[in-house]
Amino acid sequence: MTQAIKIGIVGYGNLGRGVEKAIKQNPDMELTAVFSRRDPNGVASEAKAVHISEVDQYKDEIDVLILCGGSATDLPEQGPELAGRFHTVDSFDTHAKIPEYFDSVDAAAREGGKVSVISTGWDPGLFSLSRLIAESILPEGNEYTFWGKGVSQGHSDAIRRVEGVKNGVQYTIPKEEALNRVRSGENPELSTREKHLRECYIVAQEGADQAAIEKEIKEMPNYFADYDTVVNFISEEELKANHSAMPHGGTVLRSGLTGENSKQIIEFGLTLDSNPEFTASVLVAYARAAYRLAQAGDQGAKTVFDIPYGLLSPKSAAQLRKELL
Amino acid sequence: MTQAIKIGIVGYGNLGRGVEKAIKQNPDMELTAVFSRRDPNGVASEAKAVHISEVDQYKDEIDVLILCGGSATDLPEQGPELAGRFHTVDSFDTHAKIPEYFDSVDAAAREGGKVSVISTGWDPGLFSLSRLIAESILPEGNEYTFWGKGVSQGHSDAIRRVEGVKNGVQYTIPKEEALNRVRSGENPELSTREKHLRECYIVAQEGADQAAIEKEIKEMPNYFADYDTVVNFISEEELKANHSAMPHGGTVLRSGLTGENSKQIIEFGLTLDSNPEFTASVLVAYARAAYRLAQAGDQGAKTVFDIPYGLLSPKSAAQLRKELL
Repeated sequence: MTQAIKIGIVGYGNLGRGVEKAIKQNPDMELTAVFSRRDPNGVASEAKAVHISEVDQYKDEIDVLILCGGSATDLPEQGPELAGRFHTVDSFDTHAKIPEYFDSVDAAAREGGKVSVISTGWDPGLFSLSRLIAESILPEGNEYTFWGKGVSQGHSDAIRRVEGVKNGVQYTIPKEEALNRVRSGENPELSTREKHLRECYIVAQEGADQAAIEKEIKEMPNYFADYDTVVNFISEEELKANHSAMPHGGTVLRSGLTGENSKQIIEFGLTLDSNPEFTASVLVAYARAAYRLAQAGDQGAKTVFDIPYGLLSPKSAAQLRKELL
Repeated sequence: MTQAIKIGIVGYGNLGRGVEKAIKQNPDMELTAVFSRRDPNGVASEAKAVHISEVDQYKDEIDVLILCGGSATDLPEQGPELAGRFHTVDSFDTHAKIPEYFDSVDAAAREGGKVSVISTGWDPGLFSLSRLIAESILPEGNEYTFWGKGVSQGHSDAIRRVEGVKNGVQYTIPKEEALNRVRSGENPELSTREKHLRECYIVAQEGADQAAIEKEIKEMPNYFADYDTVVNFISEEELKANHSAMPHGGTVLRSGLTGENSKQIIEFGLTLDSNPEFTASVLVAYARAAYRLAQAGDQGAKTVFDIPYGLLSPKSAAQLRKELL
């Protein structure tokens, strides 16, 4: 083993903590420091905690910064700002704004001669890769993405804003019947309602009108109105005991035709006990790739589409050909 | 659209015919000629058929040669020989000999300044990619590959060599119970017998001893002895009617742990009506990548591990980021 790849984590929420755990599973990497906007004394990492304002002092001690902030406000600012000074990896996941984000990070990274891998994780990330290769192999076909079973943060936030709701969690659940129709090669046209079910676990405030809460949720435009939605009222204790984990996952299918009429189905699926820990593990693998691209003299913003899989593994190209091809 | 990528096919069996069909599904490609060792008059391609001995006359008319010969005897000879004169793509699939094959093709391709993508298809190929990325993301875990339901040519050949057998087809069938244990995150140790079932459809010669045939098949070392094997005797007509297709597929799973004890499962699966047509479609997508690598000045042998997914698609990098990431 040559020297370990030295990682810095920016942001220490669920994702940042997941990255710290993932680094421990990769002997060719080590965590140098965690950077936070909070008081470093409040950061419960095993590594050194440093205020983000001092990040530039670590330019020579860190090979790759993994940016673990949110896509709404943190990354649009931090991404381009840090890309000029460090090699970075992030999981920017606002799909509609990826082109714009790519351009701003790319400009900064090129100016600083750095490599930045943006928008990795599983969607965008592994699911995007699956869509791309499946479409390239089966140009005549349809693509289907099913999400879940898993907690949707956006929908959970939406139900918690409903009057009379004290707490709540929303699960997105793919409908087996629709999945099986796709897997059979039927190539169905599926409505939003046919693909996913939404299931809510609600803790109501004392004396709240449960029927009114249920009605408001089920009729909420964009979030629930187009879906079959199930609303369950439970106690705060039950919510904590049974609905605190962050499972997620999903399935990307492409159903296509080749030759005269041969049905060909490509399926990629994830079943995740912990969404943030899995995303963190993907970020760490792409940090290795970023480091290697940089070592090879590359620069600028990259996405998962630009990076050969061989760079994700600690193994050499010859070893990969021998063991995994 | 710029000028189409001009493809030559070497070898016109099931795979070569599949490549011809796949090229028609890709408007950025065109088939220039089919090269065969047989009399060109006997090659039923819509494109020009040419004897393989004249291939050098097409050096300026062809961008990429797709080699559709077998891995046992054709490719070990043709691969290195043609790699020095053309950009090539092949599906060399003798896993144990890939390192050696890579080296000989690489030497030839570098000498001629050409690009050769070797060992693509689905296994080696897409399954290998799935194993590599899953292992890189979940270093603590186990990998499981299930094949089928599909026709195994090697096992079908083996049963046809049994005395008293006139014709026969063997299906490799993954056992649902084992698959479900892996999908549940149990991380089981699975024996050969627990993973796959082998089902044979046999046409016996008139007067042959069916009990003796069944016994010999079931006890055949390496091929059947370690498996639960089902032997069905059917008529030649039934074999032709119901068992002439070449379905295949399979599933690669990695079941791993992150953090304290979060189970994470990555699954990739194929359900193929036509194994050769699907492999052909993969070859065509990688021919596009070979062309682009060559345009960018790259050279030498490459595997799927070396090639970013973005090169497989006719779409530009910006379009891919906008539409598929």
